[in-house]
Amino acid sequence: VAKNDSSSSFVLYPVFLDLRNITALLVGGGEVAHRKASRLLQCGCLLTVVSPKLVPAFEEFLPLMNFRWEARGYENGEAGNYRIVVSATDEPEVNQRVCHDAKSCGCLVNVVDRPDLCTFHVPSVTRRESLQIAISTGGKCPALARHLRKQLDEIIPEQYGALADKLEIIRAYIKEKVTSQERRRIFVARIVSSRASHEFLNGNEALLDAILKGWKRARSRTGG
Amino acid sequence: VAKNDSSSSFVLYPVFLDLRNITALLVGGGEVAHRKASRLLQCGCLLTVVSPKLVPAFEEFLPLMNFRWEARGYENGEAGNYRIVVSATDEPEVNQRVCHDAKSCGCLVNVVDRPDLCTFHVPSVTRRESLQIAISTGGKCPALARHLRKQLDEIIPEQYGALADKLEIIRAYIKEKVTSQERRRIFVARIVSSRASHEFLNGNEALLDAILKGWKRARSRTGG
Repeated sequence: VAKNDSSSSFVLYPVFLDLRNITALLVGGGEVAHRKASRLLQCGCLLTVVSPKLVPAFEEFLPLMNFRWEARGYENGEAGNYRIVVSATDEPEVNQRVCHDAKSCGCLVNVVDRPDLCTFHVPSVTRRESLQIAISTGGKCPALARHLRKQLDEIIPEQYGALADKLEIIRAYIKEKVTSQERRRIFVARIVSSRASHEFLNGNEALLDAILKGWKRARSRTGG
Repeated sequence: VAKNDSSSSFVLYPVFLDLRNITALLVGGGEVAHRKASRLLQCGCLLTVVSPKLVPAFEEFLPLMNFRWEARGYENGEAGNYRIVVSATDEPEVNQRVCHDAKSCGCLVNVVDRPDLCTFHVPSVTRRESLQIAISTGGKCPALARHLRKQLDEIIPEQYGALADKLEIIRAYIKEKVTSQERRRIFVARIVSSRASHEFLNGNEALLDAILKGWKRARSRTGG
């Protein structure tokens, strides 16, 4: 009998990290490392790449203020100097060492294609501006997560990000006007599942804008 | 003109954390704190809750080995002794202090309903065993993430978790037999989007099992 899902008895904890100005180390300079670097840089972290060589795609990062390349191999212990570490080399001993150094210093570490060495797993992501949907199998089958991501990409309306921005403004208005936390929660939930929000996703922004305008007028009348 | 989406120009980095045996601090003992505690404990972290009082729902956690309650207020600096910190009190000065202490020690911190104080945001999650889908607006409108989560919950087949487990086994077989990483990748992607996987999601596991059985037989014939 094949080993089955005994390893799935624990649950991973999904979080969305604010990496602005956080120090990050990426070990490796191949195609996979390039994809990892791209996502990390987009999130605003201060990225150091350690690798004797880089694939040409890395050139796009060279002008960036938050990108630094050290053209050498990984040095023992250095992972401990960073807050988040990704190892993407094809040398198993290097990956092992990076993992060991990072774990002993308590920093977050991901080793590509070695879920057993990771303290965090990198999901597939569908993004609509500030709204993100992250899908992971905890390293069991990343291709399944990618497959599902593609399907969601087709059905999640483009307008979802703009809706999140609009609802943020509406939520701030409600916070000003409604003191009870419970009533605020119900109010916001009602707006989220309203026809106005649904229409917004279909490209018709008029209804939600009208609600917002009505509130602004009401507020200026009461002199608030 | 209302302030619009200028704050959305940075991107949050979604990760799935392995919290087994990681020390976590939760400040607060209300309903919201209880929900946060529940998810953290499920993920296997060593949780300390600091709060003069707990709502009765917390009683379910008292027998757990990885749960500890300290019946007192938050003490200056103590957030720095933990790897991950959640503040869920309704006292703004306490939330501020926890955030400050955690940030100055480089530990991850989430302050409920204060996205500006968070280094990580907690998403809404749809789970199918080891497959998880995490949705976040980065604190702009958590109710929108919850709304989308409910919709996904209705359309994501129950069998997705079992499929991830099955594909993990299939992937291990492929790893043994196919040396080229690129060919392995294509092979796995093909299985993931195959009719066999599609049928599996509809409750018909026979096709995927037959593929696996065929490989096992082939392997035993070659004596591998």
